[in-house]
Amino acid sequence: MKISELGEFGFIDAIKEGTLFNPESVVIGIGDDGAVYKTTVGMEQIAVIDTMVENSHFIIQRTGDWYDVGIKAVVSNLSDIAAMGGIPTHIVLSTAIAGNMEVDDLISLYKGIKDICRKYSVNIIGGDTVMSKEGLVITVAAFGEIEAGRAIPRGGARIGDIVAVSHTLGDSAGGLDVLLAGEKGYEKLKKAHRFPEPQIELGRLLVEHNCHSLNDISDGLASEINEIASASKVEIVLDREAIPISDELKIWSEKTAQDIWKFVLNGGEDYELVFTMSPEDFAVLQKTYIHVTAIGSVRQGPVGVKISHKGIENKLLPLGFHHFSEE
Amino acid sequence: MKISELGEFGFIDAIKEGTLFNPESVVIGIGDDGAVYKTTVGMEQIAVIDTMVENSHFIIQRTGDWYDVGIKAVVSNLSDIAAMGGIPTHIVLSTAIAGNMEVDDLISLYKGIKDICRKYSVNIIGGDTVMSKEGLVITVAAFGEIEAGRAIPRGGARIGDIVAVSHTLGDSAGGLDVLLAGEKGYEKLKKAHRFPEPQIELGRLLVEHNCHSLNDISDGLASEINEIASASKVEIVLDREAIPISDELKIWSEKTAQDIWKFVLNGGEDYELVFTMSPEDFAVLQKTYIHVTAIGSVRQGPVGVKISHKGIENKLLPLGFHHFSEE
Repeated sequence: MKISELGEFGFIDAIKEGTLFNPESVVIGIGDDGAVYKTTVGMEQIAVIDTMVENSHFIIQRTGDWYDVGIKAVVSNLSDIAAMGGIPTHIVLSTAIAGNMEVDDLISLYKGIKDICRKYSVNIIGGDTVMSKEGLVITVAAFGEIEAGRAIPRGGARIGDIVAVSHTLGDSAGGLDVLLAGEKGYEKLKKAHRFPEPQIELGRLLVEHNCHSLNDISDGLASEINEIASASKVEIVLDREAIPISDELKIWSEKTAQDIWKFVLNGGEDYELVFTMSPEDFAVLQKTYIHVTAIGSVRQGPVGVKISHKGIENKLLPLGFHHFSEE
Repeated sequence: MKISELGEFGFIDAIKEGTLFNPESVVIGIGDDGAVYKTTVGMEQIAVIDTMVENSHFIIQRTGDWYDVGIKAVVSNLSDIAAMGGIPTHIVLSTAIAGNMEVDDLISLYKGIKDICRKYSVNIIGGDTVMSKEGLVITVAAFGEIEAGRAIPRGGARIGDIVAVSHTLGDSAGGLDVLLAGEKGYEKLKKAHRFPEPQIELGRLLVEHNCHSLNDISDGLASEINEIASASKVEIVLDREAIPISDELKIWSEKTAQDIWKFVLNGGEDYELVFTMSPEDFAVLQKTYIHVTAIGSVRQGPVGVKISHKGIENKLLPLGFHHFSEE
């Protein structure tokens, strides 16, 4: 069945069940003019918003299924909340849908949205559905909480800080490359692209361990670390050899004779975290959470980022993965 | 200059100034991964989201300018907050923009957004900008506050309640009709369509005066009052002659030989309020706020809405103005 045959209310009926995964704080959920929820005394609120456009952010059948789009539309927002150190609590979402979209595809999209919300105990408390002449445009706004005064900004890096990242970088861009090439295997790369994970747990640990500055890596390390340097007005130097890279990405780059650094430094949608903190706090953090790697340091110098390789430092330009400029 | 030449960061620089109109509660505004804000002890939070699509919700040059689109994208959300009885506090927004859009047009859009936010002391705390292949898609998520336990739902209408509405109905749909006809004059109708006002003040008074159920009229009275009847599981009867209608709408309908009731009952985007409360409370409310008119009552009977005209009652079907089903 096409969406145009089902209509708005039929559609709402089809998806409104099973939207609250942490209902305690919800006073009024889906189905009124607005959602109403309680906040926690002593906590500040975080709000983020992110949009994905069909054939720009994703191409169905080539880069993933509708289910994945649902996952990623939420993850990109939860990742932004992780990048403030927060706990995600609720989302509201809006979908602009082409009338000829299959109802089953839309239900897959919502299954992805619900599955990722369930995993992180995030409530779906409201939405809007409109028609689009073209492909699907999905916007998710997510809310979260953080202990008052403890949100971790981009601009807090201090001279002497360690710069570190979580897990490995470039896997999502590598996975996209594998998917577009229609290649078999490379399951870890494909998973990194199709089902990224927001680093909520690490974000919370970073609050606890006095992290000074923090970004999520949605547009590539080069872009994100330059944002930290600019906002903090510091110089950062990265050690290229220290950046954690997965074996699969190494194999894929070698096999296809591609420069691995375009994936690692400029690839989008990793949703890992890049952050700075004192070396002492970092040493303590590593005992609790092993998937973090020091890749550089913050020093006195002109604002910007350098990357060193075999003892030679080069400027690392903020070239990243921008859907905006790609068109 | 085209947007594609300016780029994302140039665009953010062009619009990020002058976004906080009530800065006290904002900890971190635009420019980090997420916005951080404080809430008020004793208040619950309201969240709403609404999307407008070019050539579906608006046609530039025919139904209004970019400035108006900015106004309306925010008003539709503030109206939803008014429809819960709340005070709007912040918005986040996302725009999917065609690369060939003129920068000046985008700046007009944002001027509309900022002007309406300034008028209601609402902060713009975050956003996302992506490219669209087609026209503009704008999504605004708005937040507000309401005294704990006092949000006014759709489903609270009680037997014996008065049904009332604010101001006059059908003016926005009438204004759209005038605009599409390219007719001169009818400034009140055009204004109702291009620059609707969210009924925040009345929403607050309704909280104070023990309103039982409340909707904003975004999809036409017929649709909204049926939502109240269904959610409240009551029968509602409206007196057609009592519904407030503006002189301009009467003149336009007569001149163009159109059925005025399609504007009044089924026209969209009025953003007036329809509500039910005890006759006693309504009498007190009218002394404070004169722009409200009783148009019916809630009675025992089968769930649904009837409309009476010259003593004869007919079923009022929930036919409304749905962008969704129009395609």
